[in-house]
Amino acid sequence: MNMNDELIDYLSRYIEVTDELVKSINSSSMIKRFEKGSTILKEGDSYQEAFFVLKGCLRSYVLKDGEDITIDFYLDEQAVMPVGYSDLKPAEFSLECLEDSLVLINTENQEKEMIEEYPELKSLCLTMSEVLAEKIQVEYSAYKTSTPEERYRDLIEKKPELLQRVPQYQIASYLGIKPESLSRIKKRIQS
Amino acid sequence: MNMNDELIDYLSRYIEVTDELVKSINSSSMIKRFEKGSTILKEGDSYQEAFFVLKGCLRSYVLKDGEDITIDFYLDEQAVMPVGYSDLKPAEFSLECLEDSLVLINTENQEKEMIEEYPELKSLCLTMSEVLAEKIQVEYSAYKTSTPEERYRDLIEKKPELLQRVPQYQIASYLGIKPESLSRIKKRIQS
Repeated sequence: MNMNDELIDYLSRYIEVTDELVKSINSSSMIKRFEKGSTILKEGDSYQEAFFVLKGCLRSYVLKDGEDITIDFYLDEQAVMPVGYSDLKPAEFSLECLEDSLVLINTENQEKEMIEEYPELKSLCLTMSEVLAEKIQVEYSAYKTSTPEERYRDLIEKKPELLQRVPQYQIASYLGIKPESLSRIKKRIQS
Repeated sequence: MNMNDELIDYLSRYIEVTDELVKSINSSSMIKRFEKGSTILKEGDSYQEAFFVLKGCLRSYVLKDGEDITIDFYLDEQAVMPVGYSDLKPAEFSLECLEDSLVLINTENQEKEMIEEYPELKSLCLTMSEVLAEKIQVEYSAYKTSTPEERYRDLIEKKPELLQRVPQYQIASYLGIKPESLSRIKKRIQS
């Protein structure tokens, strides 16, 4: 499978992918391949792009007083961010690849151009952004109202594959705790 | 100004509002008026609606072990939630009115019907949901990486009107602290 096949495969689950759309995707440069360890976006840098992980694993994080704080992880077929509106603005967090990844990157203008040419994409973009908004809202709400142990139990239940694919110290920082506290929580759960 | 004028006024800032659209809005029942103190949505109840505050102030909160935890506040012309996709599901939080409020409430199907009839609304819905996704993401990221005092300073800077319109104990719970801690933070900042 080449890079674009991943996107076509994804789209064809939601809309009818015409030959023209395939051609257009193949001639575009919206899909980029990144090696494990690459930084896609750096906190503070100006950006306007939307990011969508076709395959792989990304992590968003912030550096604060020298401490690396994980905001979130994004696995295959997950939207990371919607396009940035208003003016070009500094990124709230950095984005790095924890695995070799295929990422769809497009700007507001590219999105508009693609939609103009392929109006059937518009419904998909609308659904995707609404699903993304809902997902982040649920996670934000859960984070605000849960203890680290509750968050960890939730991960085991809802995102078990994440625990296999991501280093433990990053899971700890994602939960808002130190690695030692995560070890204690794991022991408590196992016993 | 009647209830629908608020919506027409809002829409006309983004798209051309035709007489047909005005008629359609006037004959729909998407806009509802709620009195201060009303509960619009109850945590755990099934829902599929999207909520948008045209005028007023809403608060989302969760009851956990008897404690009332504020998730967020929503002032005039703010989207609260995108439409709920997939199946009907239990609400993650309750929504109450802190002031008399005008709220636009619509389901995924109503959104689809309106868009079919008025395709110009689709771009607006797309922009609104992308802006909403971005807003929650920025707030989630900020919450995860800041101390309560930093969050409070951020409120003073970015949402001063909220501090005038909402009780202090709810602001404290929104910041993730007890009212006494908020009093201490305020004293520290003033001195």
